[in-house]
Amino acid sequence: MNSLFSDELAQLARGIRLVVFDFDGVFTDNAVYVFQDGREVVRCYRGDGIGLRALERVGLTPLILSTEVNPVVRARAEKLRVRCVHGVDDKLRALQNIAAEMDVPLAQCAYVGNDVNDADCLRAVGFPIVVQDAHPDVIPLARYQTKTRGGYGAVREVCDMFVEILKSGKRFS
Amino acid sequence: MNSLFSDELAQLARGIRLVVFDFDGVFTDNAVYVFQDGREVVRCYRGDGIGLRALERVGLTPLILSTEVNPVVRARAEKLRVRCVHGVDDKLRALQNIAAEMDVPLAQCAYVGNDVNDADCLRAVGFPIVVQDAHPDVIPLARYQTKTRGGYGAVREVCDMFVEILKSGKRFS
Amino acid sequence: MNSLFSDELAQLARGIRLVVFDFDGVFTDNAVYVFQDGREVVRCYRGDGIGLRALERVGLTPLILSTEVNPVVRARAEKLRVRCVHGVDDKLRALQNIAAEMDVPLAQCAYVGNDVNDADCLRAVGFPIVVQDAHPDVIPLARYQTKTRGGYGAVREVCDMFVEILKSGKRFS
Amino acid sequence: MNSLFSDELAQLARGIRLVVFDFDGVFTDNAVYVFQDGREVVRCYRGDGIGLRALERVGLTPLILSTEVNPVVRARAEKLRVRCVHGVDDKLRALQNIAAEMDVPLAQCAYVGNDVNDADCLRAVGFPIVVQDAHPDVIPLARYQTKTRGGYGAVREVCDMFVEILKSGKRFS
Repeated sequence: MNSLFSDELAQLARGIRLVVFDFDGVFTDNAVYVFQDGREVVRCYRGDGIGLRALERVGLTPLILSTEVNPVVRARAEKLRVRCVHGVDDKLRALQNIAAEMDVPLAQCAYVGNDVNDADCLRAVGFPIVVQDAHPDVIPLARYQTKTRGGYGAVREVCDMFVEILKSGKRFS
Repeated sequence: MNSLFSDELAQLARGIRLVVFDFDGVFTDNAVYVFQDGREVVRCYRGDGIGLRALERVGLTPLILSTEVNPVVRARAEKLRVRCVHGVDDKLRALQNIAAEMDVPLAQCAYVGNDVNDADCLRAVGFPIVVQDAHPDVIPLARYQTKTRGGYGAVREVCDMFVEILKSGKRFS
Repeated sequence: MNSLFSDELAQLARGIRLVVFDFDGVFTDNAVYVFQDGREVVRCYRGDGIGLRALERVGLTPLILSTEVNPVVRARAEKLRVRCVHGVDDKLRALQNIAAEMDVPLAQCAYVGNDVNDADCLRAVGFPIVVQDAHPDVIPLARYQTKTRGGYGAVREVCDMFVEILKSGKRFS
Repeated sequence: MNSLFSDELAQLARGIRLVVFDFDGVFTDNAVYVFQDGREVVRCYRGDGIGLRALERVGLTPLILSTEVNPVVRARAEKLRVRCVHGVDDKLRALQNIAAEMDVPLAQCAYVGNDVNDADCLRAVGFPIVVQDAHPDVIPLARYQTKTRGGYGAVREVCDMFVEILKSGKRFS
């Protein structure tokens, strides 16, 4: 199979061990459904689970990092069996702590975001990624922009990309 | 009425007795609405019921087959009065068991799917079908791709196709 | 203000006293949100209320007629303060009964539908209307097809049309 | 950074102290999700919070004003930490009262609306704004129409516009 991805992108991807995903706007379409009593519901994408399992099979670790305090983030993470850190004020510091704890340099991390509060993390990691409908201010920070929108397959597309590159990479390296 | 469908497609459809549908991404838009406590809601299409009843009137049996464990699949199947097998790990084995139990050869089954975990079933049946927004890896496996997206009329379109072909088929055969 | 509507359409509209709306696919986008326990939620359009009040002010009566048994139809009708008949098997008979009870000939009724189970009512009334995303089989039965989709302003568009024509009609007749 | 906005728009924006937002169709996509028991849910946009905080940092006060009686408006306003007045029959009078209480002339208010019941407020304020998918009758009343639809970033876009203009304005004035 010929890779759909450039050599430059493939090289970036082959150096990654940890893939950190923002939640709202990445796993979701950045909408929140609000109940009369303040409870919240979010819209996620069923196809993400298949992608995350495949990502783990090629040796990468997915992780969810969110400023959002609502427990809906944790509920989705548990269903997807992905580690989740949410309700953090300072995403970059949280990212640094997680990476240090896992003994992964930031240069070997990918970060997938969609808005201006992801800017510091996007600047800090080795492989910054944004979704198709990211805020205009963060798009220039990314090395890869998904073709699919957040909540409509963006997480799956990121996983599929890593899987395709790493599988083909094994043949050539 | 002139059929909108090719002779080849019509011939395929006329050999089918059992139409097996994947659930997420076929009956739904592949989204899941997640509550704070982990409960799930899915978005279905009201027009599917009319199609499924018409499918039965021309002598075909619809069936829902899903890996998803959440009981929301069963809730929708009950409202639609369609037999449902869900929470299965191995879809192909489940499909083989159902077909054997109903005494229908796989060659007389259609299967409607949308993602890579449908690939084995799509390869096994006589008439493999995918939805308009199926994962790129499974589209080549299908003999028919719906014009409508999953959850936006794809099930209805499949039913309407069988009904139109089988009704016109009665005139010509 | 010059009317955006043809003389033919305006003449049709001026003869109408009762406007009967199907519910699913007209007030909604024909989706149903299904809970694990079978409860249902539908997506409606906030702007419909303004249109229905304006429709009443020009002397027309709106009414909702649905085969759907789920009480969500009634819940929406109550919020909109529109009379609602739902859970009926035979829509044409129900329409005939309502019209007779209100002493309105079917020729003075409009009917707004979206699917094949609306065909009999569309054929029976003086002014048959379908939504932009109606099933292809019923579009030829309509004298007016909305520019907006069901659940995305179709009810409002129908109300606005009647209001504009009836207001301008007062000037010319 | 060169401003994307015209001098005329920038001058309008620099005179504003209070930004009043309609709720349905502005913070939401004008849909309402209706439960069997009449409870309501609305779909909001996660990115609005970042915009509202930035708006406050440049010295403007956001406020939500709605005719809708349902408490879902208040639930969203509380999460966003924005003052909310809802369930009002006469929006213009409510706007006048709020502005008087806050000692802000209407000429120094912006109003963001989407439908005909916003017309009086749009005519009364110094800077009238409508969303991309506003009702055609109110679009001519606005000095700015957002590029994004209500519930899909319209509030954020309005906030971003004020922030960009006011930040650049500080450099030039």
